[in-house]
Amino acid sequence: MLDEIEDAPAYLRRTPDVVSEVLSEYGELVQRALFDFLPDHEPKRYLYDLVSEYPRRAGRMMRPVLCLASAKAHGASIEQAMSAAIGVELLHNALLVIDDIQDGSEERRGKASLHREHGIPLALNAGSALTVLSLVPLLKSVRSCGPFVALRIFEQAVRTAQACAEGQAMELGWRADNEIDVTPADYLRMVLLKTCSYSTIYPLQVGALVGTGQPSVDRALMRFGYFLGAAFQIQDDVLNLGGDHDQYGKELAGDLWEGKRTLITIALLRDCNAEERREVVLTLGRAREDKTDEEIDRVLTLIRKYRSIDCARRQAQAVLGAATHEFERYAPRMLPGRDRAFLAGMIPWVIEQLK
Amino acid sequence: MLDEIEDAPAYLRRTPDVVSEVLSEYGELVQRALFDFLPDHEPKRYLYDLVSEYPRRAGRMMRPVLCLASAKAHGASIEQAMSAAIGVELLHNALLVIDDIQDGSEERRGKASLHREHGIPLALNAGSALTVLSLVPLLKSVRSCGPFVALRIFEQAVRTAQACAEGQAMELGWRADNEIDVTPADYLRMVLLKTCSYSTIYPLQVGALVGTGQPSVDRALMRFGYFLGAAFQIQDDVLNLGGDHDQYGKELAGDLWEGKRTLITIALLRDCNAEERREVVLTLGRAREDKTDEEIDRVLTLIRKYRSIDCARRQAQAVLGAATHEFERYAPRMLPGRDRAFLAGMIPWVIEQLK
Repeated sequence: MLDEIEDAPAYLRRTPDVVSEVLSEYGELVQRALFDFLPDHEPKRYLYDLVSEYPRRAGRMMRPVLCLASAKAHGASIEQAMSAAIGVELLHNALLVIDDIQDGSEERRGKASLHREHGIPLALNAGSALTVLSLVPLLKSVRSCGPFVALRIFEQAVRTAQACAEGQAMELGWRADNEIDVTPADYLRMVLLKTCSYSTIYPLQVGALVGTGQPSVDRALMRFGYFLGAAFQIQDDVLNLGGDHDQYGKELAGDLWEGKRTLITIALLRDCNAEERREVVLTLGRAREDKTDEEIDRVLTLIRKYRSIDCARRQAQAVLGAATHEFERYAPRMLPGRDRAFLAGMIPWVIEQLK
Repeated sequence: MLDEIEDAPAYLRRTPDVVSEVLSEYGELVQRALFDFLPDHEPKRYLYDLVSEYPRRAGRMMRPVLCLASAKAHGASIEQAMSAAIGVELLHNALLVIDDIQDGSEERRGKASLHREHGIPLALNAGSALTVLSLVPLLKSVRSCGPFVALRIFEQAVRTAQACAEGQAMELGWRADNEIDVTPADYLRMVLLKTCSYSTIYPLQVGALVGTGQPSVDRALMRFGYFLGAAFQIQDDVLNLGGDHDQYGKELAGDLWEGKRTLITIALLRDCNAEERREVVLTLGRAREDKTDEEIDRVLTLIRKYRSIDCARRQAQAVLGAATHEFERYAPRMLPGRDRAFLAGMIPWVIEQLK
C-alpha cells in the first residue's frame, strides 16, 4: 500500500518534508540578505521606510526559494544565486504594493495595505521604486555569471515585468468592463502573464541561467513553471473564498468584492440559470463600495450550490498533472539531491499549502 | 555691439537657430523610431493603446535629442544612439503617467490625462509597463557598444529611475505634510533627483557612454546636465504660474492647486508678513478639491506683490551661469560642430522656451 502511494504521480502525493525545510532554510537566508539591497539613506520617511515595509512583513518566500533551489539543482551555490533571488522577491513586493492600490485592497500580510497607511501618491511612488530596485541586485550577477549571462538575466527580468503588466491589464480590463465571456483559456492566459511569469517561470529560469552559465534554458523547465504557477493561483483563488482569514492574511472573499474573474466565477456563470446569472453579473460589476454583505453572501451561496469551488479544484489537479509530466521530462537535466526533491515536492505543495 | 553680444556668456546670449533645427530634426527621427519599440499585440485596449497614448501626443523631445546630440558630439552615429534615446523618452512618458495620477492632474499635452480617460488602475498599470519598456531598447545597445558599456548603461538607467522616485518622494512628502521650512537647497536637491536625473544628466551621460565606448563619464558633463536641468525646472515652475495655457499644455497655476513647493512659493513664504504667511500655508496645505479659485487668486496676488517670480527667474540665471562654466570646462572633450553648438545653445534655450 505504501509502495503504491510512493509510486503515485507527484500531483497525488503528499508534500514531502523537504519542502517546508528548504522553504524555511533558504527563506531565512533571503530574508536576511534582502535588506542589504534596500537603501538605508534619505528620503526615509517618504520613501525607503515605505519600500521596506512589505519586505519586513515577510511572506512565505516561495519565489526566491524556487530561484535558489533551481540554481543549486543546476550546479550553482546559494551565494552565486542570492542576488537574483533577492531581485525576484523585490519584484514580488513591488507588484503587491501596486496591486493593492489598483484593487483598493485594505490588508496585506495581516496589516494595513501600504496606500491605506501612507496615501496613494507616496505608496505608488514606493511601488515604482521597488520595481526599479528589483533590478539592482541583478547588476551584481555580472561578477558571478559574466556579462552575457548577466545581460540575459536582465532581459528576462524586464520581459517578466512586462508580462506582469500585460496580465494585470487583462484582469483589470475584464473588471472595468464587467466582461462576462471570459473562458477558462482566457483565465489561464491571464494567469500565465500575471502570476506564473514572475512567481515560477522567471525564478526557475534565472536559477538555471546562473547555474548552467548558459544563456538559454530548456522550455520544459518553463512549462513546468507555468503549470506549477497556474495551480498555485487557482488554489489562491479557492483559498480567497473558502480559506481561513488569519492564515490567509488577506480580506476573505476579497476577489468577489473586487469583481475578479476566476475559474470559480467562470464555472458559476456557466452552470447557474439565467436569473442567477443576471444577479451574479450585477454584483460582480458593481463598484466595491456599492456592494453589500448580503450580495456577496448571495454569490457565495450560489458558488456552494453549484459546487464551483470543486470545479476549480479539479482543474488545479489537472494542471498539476501537466506540471508533473513536464517536471519528469526535465528532471534528468538537474543534479539529483535535495534541491531537485524540493522542486518535485512543490507540485503537491502548491495545493496543500494552507488548505 | 554685435561682437559684444557674441562674447557675452552663454546664459546671456539668445538661443541660436541650431537649437530649434536640431530639436525638430532629431526629434522627428525619435518620434518615428519610437513606435518600433512599443508592442503592437494584445492586450491592446487595456494596455498597449494606453502605453502609446502619451508618446503619440509627442512632446518637445528635449530629452532624447540631448542624448543623440551628446552621442554625436562624442563620436557616435544617430543609429548607434537611437535605442538609448528612445529609452530616455519612454522613461519620461512613464513618469508623466505616474506623476499625473499622483498629482491628480487633469490634462497632459493639451488633452485629458491618462487616468482621467481610463481610470487609475489601468493608467497606473500602463505607467508601470512604460517604466519597464523604457529598459527594453537598452538591450539593443549590446550590439553597438559591447556588453560592458551596455551593462553600464543599464546600471545608469536603473539608478536614474531610482533617483526619480527619491525626488518624487521628497516633493510628495512635503505636500502631504504641508512642510513650510523647505529651503532653496532642499528644492535644488529635489530637482536634481526628480528632474535633472532623467531629463538632462542621464541623456548626456548615456550619449557619452555610447559615443566614447568607455564605461565612465567625466563629472563636469554631469554637472552641466544638473545646472541645465535645474534652470529648466525653475523656468517650468515660472511658466506654470505666469505662462499661457495653450502653449503650456497643462492646467495654469496647477502647482498651486497641487500645493507644490517651488522657488516661487519658497520666496513668497520668506518675504510675506506673518498673517499672509498663515494664509498661504493654509491654502497650499488644503486638499486640491477643497481649494477655491479665490484662494488661488489671492496667492497669485501675493506672488505678484512680492515679485516672487522675479526672484525665481534670477536664481535660474545664476544656475545657468554655473551651467555655462561647466560646459566650457567640458567642451574641449567633445567634437566641435553642430551637436556641440546645439548643447551650448540649450543654455539660453531652457529659459527662453515658451517664455
